[in-house]
Amino acid sequence: MPKQVDHEERRELIAGAVRRLAADRGLEGVSLGEVAAEAGISKGLVQHYFPTRDAMLRHATRTLRDRVETRVRQPMSTGGLTGLHAVLIALLPLHDESRTEALAANAFLVRALKDPEIAERFRAGHARLREELAAMTAAAQADGDLRETLDPAREADLLLALVAGLGDAVLLGYRTPAEAKALVAHHLSRLTR
Amino acid sequence: MPKQVDHEERRELIAGAVRRLAADRGLEGVSLGEVAAEAGISKGLVQHYFPTRDAMLRHATRTLRDRVETRVRQPMSTGGLTGLHAVLIALLPLHDESRTEALAANAFLVRALKDPEIAERFRAGHARLREELAAMTAAAQADGDLRETLDPAREADLLLALVAGLGDAVLLGYRTPAEAKALVAHHLSRLTR
Repeated sequence: MPKQVDHEERRELIAGAVRRLAADRGLEGVSLGEVAAEAGISKGLVQHYFPTRDAMLRHATRTLRDRVETRVRQPMSTGGLTGLHAVLIALLPLHDESRTEALAANAFLVRALKDPEIAERFRAGHARLREELAAMTAAAQADGDLRETLDPAREADLLLALVAGLGDAVLLGYRTPAEAKALVAHHLSRLTR
Repeated sequence: MPKQVDHEERRELIAGAVRRLAADRGLEGVSLGEVAAEAGISKGLVQHYFPTRDAMLRHATRTLRDRVETRVRQPMSTGGLTGLHAVLIALLPLHDESRTEALAANAFLVRALKDPEIAERFRAGHARLREELAAMTAAAQADGDLRETLDPAREADLLLALVAGLGDAVLLGYRTPAEAKALVAHHLSRLTR
């Protein structure tokens, strides 16, 4: 019997190559040929899964979003102020993998303004994170860990902006990972009762 | 007498074209030919000023930094808590021009990690803004407008991360300009006495 090809695995192999190339060189480094070379497969095989470069780029943004959601799932389920803190730390690019993902997401920013499918994915991902951070903030208020005068949605906006900005500062070497973590902790400490 | 050519004006014409193309399409849209077309001059003339694409890109990042510094100069000279607030608002991409600059700066992020000259320019620009925000924070403390227990450098880091993250949120349409301004005001209000 011929070996069963795992199509999902192949698509992830290609998406991983797109993420690494985009992180390393920006989207200008992401051609079907470069992706094939990076993934160690033929250009024809890449085209079998993604007939166009645009389709390949769109799929890569889907995997970017999935990876962020996977990364925050565990700390999110922890709940409480501890969980909220852990989610924020998980959103910072502190490790090789999350650094690659953050750089790749950055490389897609300008494209997100032009491609409605990518724009909608970014927007939905941001809206979901915002809802979840607001819900965690409200729960920590109910626990008596965060001040009850805080508006959860507003605090979620501030927290998301803060980790996005600190993430760029870490990527560019303006701040060390330890400094970024300390700044998140300091901001959170101001919200506690 | 032949008309005197203003070389600085020509270089700015080219840099402006690079900024607009980078903001619109990312660096993948910035070739010598595209820049010549966007600037309305010949490719040969672009090459007269910038023999290589890299030289042209480096110059464009210099103009990006100059423009940010020009934008914050007036609010900075205002001083006090009012001036600090105005500097933060000036750093948000709330108008066509600052939006183009913010998108172009974003397009250069991955390249800044590879090109030491661009990296150093980004780093120096960030360090200078950080110093100035810390000095304004300290001055507002001395005026009795900000709490004296604040660490100015730490607050400057938080403020810069916040406006960077809010800037991306505005660019991507996650938050409106009015919402971003309200969030900055809310964050600042927590630092007042």
